[in-house]
Amino acid sequence: MPPALMESPNPASQQTDVSDVGEFGLIAHLRDTLGAPDDESVVSGIADDAAVYRVGDGRVHLLTTDQLVEGIHFDRAFMPMEHLGFKALSVNVSDIAAMNAEPRYAVVSIGLSQQVSVEMVQQIYEGVQQACDAYDVTVVGGDTTSNHALSLSVTVVGEAEETDVVYRGGAKVGDKLCVTGDIGASYAGLKALARNRQRMEEQGEDFQPNLDPFSYVIRRHLAPPAQLKTVRDWAAAGVKPHALIDISDGLASEIHHVCEASGTGAQLYEPALPIDPETRNTATDFGEDVSIYALFGGEDYELLFTLPEDELDALDPQSFSVIGEITEPEDPEQPVFFQRANGDNVPLNPGGFDHFGDGEPEL
Amino acid sequence: MPPALMESPNPASQQTDVSDVGEFGLIAHLRDTLGAPDDESVVSGIADDAAVYRVGDGRVHLLTTDQLVEGIHFDRAFMPMEHLGFKALSVNVSDIAAMNAEPRYAVVSIGLSQQVSVEMVQQIYEGVQQACDAYDVTVVGGDTTSNHALSLSVTVVGEAEETDVVYRGGAKVGDKLCVTGDIGASYAGLKALARNRQRMEEQGEDFQPNLDPFSYVIRRHLAPPAQLKTVRDWAAAGVKPHALIDISDGLASEIHHVCEASGTGAQLYEPALPIDPETRNTATDFGEDVSIYALFGGEDYELLFTLPEDELDALDPQSFSVIGEITEPEDPEQPVFFQRANGDNVPLNPGGFDHFGDGEPEL
Repeated sequence: MPPALMESPNPASQQTDVSDVGEFGLIAHLRDTLGAPDDESVVSGIADDAAVYRVGDGRVHLLTTDQLVEGIHFDRAFMPMEHLGFKALSVNVSDIAAMNAEPRYAVVSIGLSQQVSVEMVQQIYEGVQQACDAYDVTVVGGDTTSNHALSLSVTVVGEAEETDVVYRGGAKVGDKLCVTGDIGASYAGLKALARNRQRMEEQGEDFQPNLDPFSYVIRRHLAPPAQLKTVRDWAAAGVKPHALIDISDGLASEIHHVCEASGTGAQLYEPALPIDPETRNTATDFGEDVSIYALFGGEDYELLFTLPEDELDALDPQSFSVIGEITEPEDPEQPVFFQRANGDNVPLNPGGFDHFGDGEPEL
Repeated sequence: MPPALMESPNPASQQTDVSDVGEFGLIAHLRDTLGAPDDESVVSGIADDAAVYRVGDGRVHLLTTDQLVEGIHFDRAFMPMEHLGFKALSVNVSDIAAMNAEPRYAVVSIGLSQQVSVEMVQQIYEGVQQACDAYDVTVVGGDTTSNHALSLSVTVVGEAEETDVVYRGGAKVGDKLCVTGDIGASYAGLKALARNRQRMEEQGEDFQPNLDPFSYVIRRHLAPPAQLKTVRDWAAAGVKPHALIDISDGLASEIHHVCEASGTGAQLYEPALPIDPETRNTATDFGEDVSIYALFGGEDYELLFTLPEDELDALDPQSFSVIGEITEPEDPEQPVFFQRANGDNVPLNPGGFDHFGDGEPEL
């Protein structure tokens, strides 16, 4: 049953650097290796925010998993352990919400480095429990293992009627492009925290941190809520978006995912981007363009969705913003355009912070 | 919705070292923090090899997740990437088999360090694909992220009739204690590989490795198969074990899990332990007691099960060994006894290689 033992396990010849293909390139590569699922119960495999498979009676389950690793996804120096537990659940619940489904069960695995104490693990689990209460999720499994750095790996199972599931590929030309809440705040929070840390290192005990002007954006970074309420409001209003995705990698990147999967283009308007005043102030403080935060910052965990204009009336206008519309793709290489506040209409590249990308994005 | 932002994230006062409570102590701690699931569809939470929840029509799904991390669970110097992919699936499928269920879907997440190439990821996925073919599993989701070391995190969803699921807590006094295949081989393989590596470091290019005498045990360590065939044979024979668990942490540890969950004791016989000649030769080569390998080595991924003697007749006698029996627990602190080949009957402690334990076990 197991593959034959190879003589020379990992030959070093002709190795391709992962950064040459990028994260999304690699996933596409893997999808090709594994081929399309030949199990008829699988409705959707490696293609959307969560996998979808039938469980009978017209219902489907959705499966998603995500890991937060110290030094990669968070800095232990400024991440309260309770928030870490909360966030690990949120990012997974967000993937389920992004399929228009309800989260049900979670499995939580903690990778422990030597610096981690029982009390820290306890705090992580208290954050997990708070998230479970907030999202109506039940933790059904847990595990601990040794690791080089503290890590938290969560799997969430969601549930929905098969006909209620919304994919990223359903956008129609003419749909309004909408986003819940506000965007760019998580990245602004990260900037404020990183500067705080740097100053602490430079000035030592003399440093008097004042993070009050950044309390909202920091909160958005450390303990982002998943937009499950929006999904429930849609169900209550009898509304089902055409296309749906959550904003984890950055708005620009997610819009490209929607356009690619839907075979459409999109027109986005800079003045329509919903940006919190604190996010704006943070960008000003750093002398940076707040639209960069909003388009490429990522980790917002808001929902991006498309609907025809007349269906938007059924929704609470406070709960979302129209930021553009779905268009015919004039040029498949440049499907998304961004009209700046000065009227210039420029092609927008995905440019979100690809984990293996290189450098800062530019408009 | 998110918890309040704390001023001082992680106070260093009164921290308890994880090694003070151990891995199983920590999991018990977490179970207490999270409380019993109040979702009626959950049949079994953090208590067995996999979580169990109802999906309707008398059927349940089972959920398990496990991660292999470079430098903790494997050494990249002697782990072919294809085997890594295969093993990551096997250890999860083994948890599903250990509930008497069929694996169905998998999600595979790769954590990439900078040393990892596209070709290596490709090889990992080829091993994953081989395991999927062997176990009839469909990969429905995949993800890559950056990490400090190469890691492979797999979640598997299994399926069964609710009445077919077997838990570790069902052992009855008088049951025969049985194990599939042979045990201790994986640990013997690890020893041979580690010595090989050490000699390579000492002797450099002059070193001529000869791993031929260890080919079986090395294979058992690097690419252990899950015992899914056994589960299918039981179904075909109409047999359902009373208690069932897979041997991941070591036979002694797993027997204690069964006894604790079942409220029983157990009597084990040294001469009955199924040990491959190559495992025995490896222990002799190292001047060590092969029973230590069998009892505490772990990573065998064989199945430990209990059944009344008369039900064993329905099974292929080549497929398992009777290694002891379930007893009344005379002393709850010492539920398991081990009769040595010389006739001495000694209490057996769990002593498997707890990830946070200290030092070598002794009989």
